[in-house]
Amino acid sequence: MKKRIFIPGPVELAAEVLAAQAQPMMGHRTPDFNAILEECWDGLRYVYQTKNDVAIITGSGTAAMDAAVSSVISAGDEVVCIGGGKFGERFPKIVSAFGGKPIDVPVEWGKAVDPSEVESAVAGSSAVAITMTHNETSTGVLHDAKAIARIARENNMLFIMDAVTSVGGEDVKTDEWGVDICITGSQKCLAAPPGLGFAAVNNRAWDVIENNSGKRGFYLDLASYRKSLKKSTTPFTPAVSLIYGLRAALSIIRDEGLENRINRHRLLAEATREAVLAMNLELFADPDYASNTVTAIKIPAGLTDDDVRGRLNSDFGILLAGGQESVKGRIFRIGHMAAVDAVDLLGLLSALEIVLAKAGHDFTRGAGVTAAQSRLADL
Amino acid sequence: MKKRIFIPGPVELAAEVLAAQAQPMMGHRTPDFNAILEECWDGLRYVYQTKNDVAIITGSGTAAMDAAVSSVISAGDEVVCIGGGKFGERFPKIVSAFGGKPIDVPVEWGKAVDPSEVESAVAGSSAVAITMTHNETSTGVLHDAKAIARIARENNMLFIMDAVTSVGGEDVKTDEWGVDICITGSQKCLAAPPGLGFAAVNNRAWDVIENNSGKRGFYLDLASYRKSLKKSTTPFTPAVSLIYGLRAALSIIRDEGLENRINRHRLLAEATREAVLAMNLELFADPDYASNTVTAIKIPAGLTDDDVRGRLNSDFGILLAGGQESVKGRIFRIGHMAAVDAVDLLGLLSALEIVLAKAGHDFTRGAGVTAAQSRLADL
Repeated sequence: MKKRIFIPGPVELAAEVLAAQAQPMMGHRTPDFNAILEECWDGLRYVYQTKNDVAIITGSGTAAMDAAVSSVISAGDEVVCIGGGKFGERFPKIVSAFGGKPIDVPVEWGKAVDPSEVESAVAGSSAVAITMTHNETSTGVLHDAKAIARIARENNMLFIMDAVTSVGGEDVKTDEWGVDICITGSQKCLAAPPGLGFAAVNNRAWDVIENNSGKRGFYLDLASYRKSLKKSTTPFTPAVSLIYGLRAALSIIRDEGLENRINRHRLLAEATREAVLAMNLELFADPDYASNTVTAIKIPAGLTDDDVRGRLNSDFGILLAGGQESVKGRIFRIGHMAAVDAVDLLGLLSALEIVLAKAGHDFTRGAGVTAAQSRLADL
Repeated sequence: MKKRIFIPGPVELAAEVLAAQAQPMMGHRTPDFNAILEECWDGLRYVYQTKNDVAIITGSGTAAMDAAVSSVISAGDEVVCIGGGKFGERFPKIVSAFGGKPIDVPVEWGKAVDPSEVESAVAGSSAVAITMTHNETSTGVLHDAKAIARIARENNMLFIMDAVTSVGGEDVKTDEWGVDICITGSQKCLAAPPGLGFAAVNNRAWDVIENNSGKRGFYLDLASYRKSLKKSTTPFTPAVSLIYGLRAALSIIRDEGLENRINRHRLLAEATREAVLAMNLELFADPDYASNTVTAIKIPAGLTDDDVRGRLNSDFGILLAGGQESVKGRIFRIGHMAAVDAVDLLGLLSALEIVLAKAGHDFTRGAGVTAAQSRLADL
């Protein structure tokens, strides 16, 4: 059975990206390899909409989140951490792991953060930074990055944003908004293989990092990455084959054009949401803040995770993501990011209708698919 | 021009390993992927000669060194750090980066550590651990791991060993010697793509790690890796394509047999050293402690790095490693590890004779190659 993955990363990769990884190894301290890294930096600055440095870290997106926090804080430092999902709530854990004091701004899962609550948390604190997950993969919510960046700037704090599932699929105006450290990962909207984390860092953040005598870390100290960047290299042996894959993936993005790519993601997301509603399913995320890269859907009453995800997997070889932590077994999630196109999505939605019908879910068969068709083909 | 790399990692990869990386992505939290990880763990335990857990970290070998140190120490802890090369001397930097106090045991580059000097350093300290680089890639020296492990055990300290360029090429008896945390990397003797670091951890070390309330780190906290290991998974999204490559590489090692593989490395190293001496060149490392995976050679008087490495690269597409830090421009290094075989080595040595002859080096042409032939073919 042909396997298809619609999880919010790792995503399916274009054949060119897969094949790029199989190129022979080369010395990682050679002008030829430095030139490949330079191509990657150019492409990364393009998707990040930044003119600043982008650290390329061999590690997952979490490695880049760790690098951002640990390079910026010292033990005892307060950090305002916006919650609302598994990844937003990972930041306070990282802050604590480095001896910092997280000030949580709790957000109900599925809802977007209210900026005024962040302002209140900031007002009563001496925090050095605010952290937020831009696109919360665990809930399908896109938070208002611009508003939070403004609050950070006005209060002389750094804004560390996890944009792991937004950069390359959503409009992320790193420089214009003033995101001081903007993190992403290779295996999401960039459609590159997993194993690389990125951090776009502006001068405001570099000043803090380079003057932070109390920071803890070696492999993930961003200062080392900056030193190496100036010599067109990385501080430690990079994952050469993943860099080959990244270069190929970034070249595909350049060919599509970032604006087209963001519009494609938006259209797929709208089609997904409309189809889901037409299937008599409920969306988990607040529709005003719905993500364009991942959609979370409530498992309808009477059905189980196994009825939906289990059957899609066993009958059609399709892998969707389940709910995590507090919503485990209550939602399922469709990643419609990276290289997913209209035909992929229509196939998936049709298969979803079959398993829902078989499980006895009450809906008009065909309604989901036709809703998506209407949106995708402007019918 | 066909390119050949004889650097001490990244190494050239077998076609099967290169191709393995191009397999389609799969969900990293699925039974199918867990089974691939289990195969990797089996293979890693085999090369490590251990029954214990092996953490698979997406990151370089340095990431695993960082993980070992940062998981074990708290701020203020003393650690005895054996020097003698770039990588051994990286440990005190990591210790300092986490607020620990390194107690350096300096070793002249090219020489092996004298265990009695470690005993003296240990005696006057309250160190919690001893660190050492087993095979010092920067100098071509193999240190006596067994002796240092014994000292650590007798003094109730942990022994953290960087075996990045020994595991898979040298005899590394992790369990028998009692190496508490034994670190390696994918891109050296294992002949897998770069980007994965490994740490074999025994129960003695797990006890320290799990009771270390003062540790600093999140992505590189080994405790998370252990928790995930028990569920046949990794704590963060792994580099899926590198895991595919690793599996293929470990399968090749199993087919060759570890003992055969170690003997092959030893034979290639002896042939290299004998050839080098027959070319009227001087070895940099103490011959009693010569590495079997990398050989460092002094650039002869009157010749430059460019005469040797530069010409090998420009005329033959061969990349050797140069000297690092204090020996930059004074030595060059041949990595004869991983998949390198007799024919590869004979070709390289013959090309080396050509560039030496062209540069006016005084030696009997053919002497190096015939010395290697004698050793390799038992002539």
